[in-house]
Amino acid sequence: MDISPPGRLAGPEEGISAQELALATRNHGLPLEALRYDVSPPGLHYVLVHYDIPATDPDAWRLTVGGRVLREVAFGMDELRARPAVTRRVTLECAGNGRARLLPRPVSQPWLVEAVGTADWTGVPLAALLSDTGAGEDAVEAVFTGTDHGVERGVEQDYRRSLPLATAADPARDVLVAYAMNGAPLPPQHGSPLRLVVPGWYGMAHVKWLHDITLTATPYTGFQQAVAYRLRQEPDDPGEAVTRIAPRALMIPPGFPDFMSRVRVVRPGPVPLAGRAWSGHGPVTRVEVSADDGTTWSDADVTRDPAHPWAWSAWRADWTAAPGPYRLTARATDAEGYVQPLTGPWNRGGFANNLVQHVEVYCAAEGEDLRPGGARDGA
Amino acid sequence: MDISPPGRLAGPEEGISAQELALATRNHGLPLEALRYDVSPPGLHYVLVHYDIPATDPDAWRLTVGGRVLREVAFGMDELRARPAVTRRVTLECAGNGRARLLPRPVSQPWLVEAVGTADWTGVPLAALLSDTGAGEDAVEAVFTGTDHGVERGVEQDYRRSLPLATAADPARDVLVAYAMNGAPLPPQHGSPLRLVVPGWYGMAHVKWLHDITLTATPYTGFQQAVAYRLRQEPDDPGEAVTRIAPRALMIPPGFPDFMSRVRVVRPGPVPLAGRAWSGHGPVTRVEVSADDGTTWSDADVTRDPAHPWAWSAWRADWTAAPGPYRLTARATDAEGYVQPLTGPWNRGGFANNLVQHVEVYCAAEGEDLRPGGARDGA
Repeated sequence: MDISPPGRLAGPEEGISAQELALATRNHGLPLEALRYDVSPPGLHYVLVHYDIPATDPDAWRLTVGGRVLREVAFGMDELRARPAVTRRVTLECAGNGRARLLPRPVSQPWLVEAVGTADWTGVPLAALLSDTGAGEDAVEAVFTGTDHGVERGVEQDYRRSLPLATAADPARDVLVAYAMNGAPLPPQHGSPLRLVVPGWYGMAHVKWLHDITLTATPYTGFQQAVAYRLRQEPDDPGEAVTRIAPRALMIPPGFPDFMSRVRVVRPGPVPLAGRAWSGHGPVTRVEVSADDGTTWSDADVTRDPAHPWAWSAWRADWTAAPGPYRLTARATDAEGYVQPLTGPWNRGGFANNLVQHVEVYCAAEGEDLRPGGARDGA
Repeated sequence: MDISPPGRLAGPEEGISAQELALATRNHGLPLEALRYDVSPPGLHYVLVHYDIPATDPDAWRLTVGGRVLREVAFGMDELRARPAVTRRVTLECAGNGRARLLPRPVSQPWLVEAVGTADWTGVPLAALLSDTGAGEDAVEAVFTGTDHGVERGVEQDYRRSLPLATAADPARDVLVAYAMNGAPLPPQHGSPLRLVVPGWYGMAHVKWLHDITLTATPYTGFQQAVAYRLRQEPDDPGEAVTRIAPRALMIPPGFPDFMSRVRVVRPGPVPLAGRAWSGHGPVTRVEVSADDGTTWSDADVTRDPAHPWAWSAWRADWTAAPGPYRLTARATDAEGYVQPLTGPWNRGGFANNLVQHVEVYCAAEGEDLRPGGARDGA
């Protein structure tokens, strides 16, 4: 029985394994047509749970804040809810989004492009909590601990991650200790009753089922910080930490799908294209679309909502389809000048792969035979 | 471009394909630890969408009832909500649950065992609606049409299924035209604003985004009735229709998981086992558990809630773990005498595969090395 295997890359001909499938059937992405909603409806926002969803009791929940603080504090949920609350609309993406499109494929949760969602998170600003506790002069990081418990590459652990204190304590970074999602208490899979929300950072930073915050005088070197979530080319590289979300544009797949192939069918004529784009480095300044797999590009109209700087922007473009096959693509550029790549940025963990999306589309006349060997193949 | 391929079986060494993965990342099962909840919380109930989740407008929604009726009728949502409502707790399971464990594997949505959920559905009894319209003397079936549109094996279609009129119009069968799930309006992926709920039947009968009911004088022979959802050994068999849910017991995986292998780790000593069991043929009368992969069995305590005859029952059993590997299993028997099989009932579509669940468990001492080649392998 192979209980806790090391990380590995799939073989060149290896399909998705039974273990990857077991992750894919329990975690889920945003069905891409749900990009139509400004805020992802309940149950459509992506979910990744490392271990099990813990059974938690909101009435008995305590958040402790300690370590290199001037005053240790602890809060029940009622005490947190009684504090001044803020709501922030945040687009959240899994750091492993795009992993299953890499070659060779890192074996883990096999996301294609859909591990994203946007929610209105309500909670207490972390900066305000840390202002209450104060920070010791030697404090450099805040370490966040959840109650989800498991083993990963041989290391038994509660899920735990850190942030630089400069990020955690900066009111402008809008880090939240959140107890509500879209106006309702957090659902179990999103961290009930309490989670961290770190706008602009990949999902691994947004610790769920949060019960402890500890300020430390040295950088945290636990599994999820120093072993996982590093950009590495070789197993022994120390690697670069995964932090902010790289820019990505996603298109609402136009037309209608085939159940099995997911190829899209559209009719000849105008086909409006639309989607969302986001970046953790700053506002998206440009979205381009291509109907010929990246040979030629045209600019989409991007609508940024200044009320929601941490949320995705909407984009629209016109396209006129003529009969035949197409591969549609969109790419985002952000204010820092980061542009989505046309070939994937490979690393051993399969993190931050913001390779452009490809949407296979066939423009068919009404009633055209869509079966293999149907009229479109001759006759 | 292979737009709309025929059904097929995976090759003997073929892993999950990119197309199956595209389905698995958008649809999702119930994370098995969520079997702890009597009613599946929002976002945890399984979801299968054949095509796209349609964009619908509840304010403009009309349900039409016609065909072989005595009086055609149409309802807006306010009119439906003004009628006497009933709420029924129903366990719903996808007919394809278990498909990915079959050999050879039918290529489609690759469920393992988790395509299930339980919800409180509120709506109008279909029998009451049909009592208003009356039924022509020659009416034999009711055909239900949703707005989700796509192509499947070359057939462009709106999703559509029928029920025998004797089932549809029988108040005791509790078929509902439902507009609420767990007290809230239906979420988009569960059929907003209106769906059918057919207690005891697999999910394909519960037509979502329901906008038309037509009584017919001949049995419906459309794609989802006569081509898909048939139990066939050979492609040319007419096959038997998939209807009611076969019995199944599922266990909440005990202990804690490895992230990647999903093997469960427990400590030596008493390990309570618990889960749910259900059948569309009648009450579950027995659940047995085995810690040695089906060699020996012991009876679990089954708690049936008479207030919710269409919902799963809870079960509990005691187990004492000693160090080493285990394969845990549970099996359900229902009042009609159907028993879960220990080897899978294979058919080309991979439907109604209620082969018993296998839960791989390793009982480890505190601190034991769980890596391959760790202390447990010798030393």
